[in-house]
Amino acid sequence: MPRYRFTVEYDGSAYNGFQAQVGQPTVQGAIETAITAFCGQAVRIAAAGRTDTGVHATGQTCHVDLERDWPARTVMNALNAHLMHEAVSVLDCTPVGDDWHARFTAVGRKYLYRILSRPGRPALDRGRVWHVKKPLDAEAMHEAAQSLIGLHDFTTFRDAACQSASPVKTLDTARVVRIGEEVHLVFEARSFLHRQVRSMTGSLVEVGLGRWTPADLAEALEARDRARCGPVAPSDGLYLTGVVYETEA
Amino acid sequence: MPRYRFTVEYDGSAYNGFQAQVGQPTVQGAIETAITAFCGQAVRIAAAGRTDTGVHATGQTCHVDLERDWPARTVMNALNAHLMHEAVSVLDCTPVGDDWHARFTAVGRKYLYRILSRPGRPALDRGRVWHVKKPLDAEAMHEAAQSLIGLHDFTTFRDAACQSASPVKTLDTARVVRIGEEVHLVFEARSFLHRQVRSMTGSLVEVGLGRWTPADLAEALEARDRARCGPVAPSDGLYLTGVVYETEA
Repeated sequence: MPRYRFTVEYDGSAYNGFQAQVGQPTVQGAIETAITAFCGQAVRIAAAGRTDTGVHATGQTCHVDLERDWPARTVMNALNAHLMHEAVSVLDCTPVGDDWHARFTAVGRKYLYRILSRPGRPALDRGRVWHVKKPLDAEAMHEAAQSLIGLHDFTTFRDAACQSASPVKTLDTARVVRIGEEVHLVFEARSFLHRQVRSMTGSLVEVGLGRWTPADLAEALEARDRARCGPVAPSDGLYLTGVVYETEA
Repeated sequence: MPRYRFTVEYDGSAYNGFQAQVGQPTVQGAIETAITAFCGQAVRIAAAGRTDTGVHATGQTCHVDLERDWPARTVMNALNAHLMHEAVSVLDCTPVGDDWHARFTAVGRKYLYRILSRPGRPALDRGRVWHVKKPLDAEAMHEAAQSLIGLHDFTTFRDAACQSASPVKTLDTARVVRIGEEVHLVFEARSFLHRQVRSMTGSLVEVGLGRWTPADLAEALEARDRARCGPVAPSDGLYLTGVVYETEA
């Protein structure tokens, strides 16, 4: 069966997470329903990352096996037509070999966390940013973030429900920059633990607020103790922005 | 009565325009209701610009006269508390003299028009950008936009319902830049005619699509003929981003 790879953007606030659940609106459910409406085939798609409820994506990568050999452009246009009333959009579509897998051949995931750093509530980006009213020291956050880079046991920044076999991961990128009224945190790694980005972000905000020093963050990491994690950042500001595959790395 | 100046951000897609209308949700109506809820006073606010239905603002400026001399911070916090369930947010608040007027002492208005320039539909910024699927030549649009700068009779780019006494206005800034998948158009002038920004934007997109040359746009302006205007851009992508007052100019 021909396999198609496609990139999707979605507004996570409209769904109960990515993963399909009976009786709940999910991103996976919306896409699978659109595929069935297009070609009549009951399908199960695969995706690089299972984002939580409220988490957005500008570059989630998926694949699906179709019975017929459709032109990729037809698949993309048909899915978008059937997703018209959903907060999901298919950005591209290409045929791939059946040894290519959206999840298992991915070698990198990129996340962006957007914080709105100003006293006034967001009227336009409600649900798409974390609103932090008090001033944030983005430079101190960036400095602290550097201690997270590399191979570490990330137990401190791992959700209790995490199903990963090991808490040891390598974080390749951790960058904090102020862009106007927003503070953006960018993280890149081969893979992440459950709620790792939101856990690291919440702790980095403690540094930004002056409650923690960069050294406190490094100590929290070294403690390998979930109780040492700062308040976990809300899902609103988190975006899966891209997935890297071997040939592109 | 003490006068307060305040800046508001709003999501225009939630309202039937800025200006109060009986029985319709409007930005002005939401703000006036919040003020009444806060201090019990029936008020009428003034604003720098009356944006159309669907047009957003990140920097609309208003003023209100209150009977009591409240600390400005109290006014801002109280309004935001009462606007909690509205897509309107008050970003700052300062006391001003009664010779200061949000509309009549304004000497400049700044608008941003956001175009999403890619094949895929927006899932996250639906209603906040104009989605143009075909490729746009932003450099050609910028070149064409330069012919709009200066003192002109803007009849071509003026809505039939415009109530301005004269179609002659001075455009100070017209800039077009590509930022990733978006094309941003920035316009600044003392004041604008009704739908002038959307009319100019729609015509500049004709240039971006290669249907018009920059010379065609200059000729359309010189023709002073509404029939020569390109398709008017939708309200979705338009933002009132700031208002300039004499002391700040």
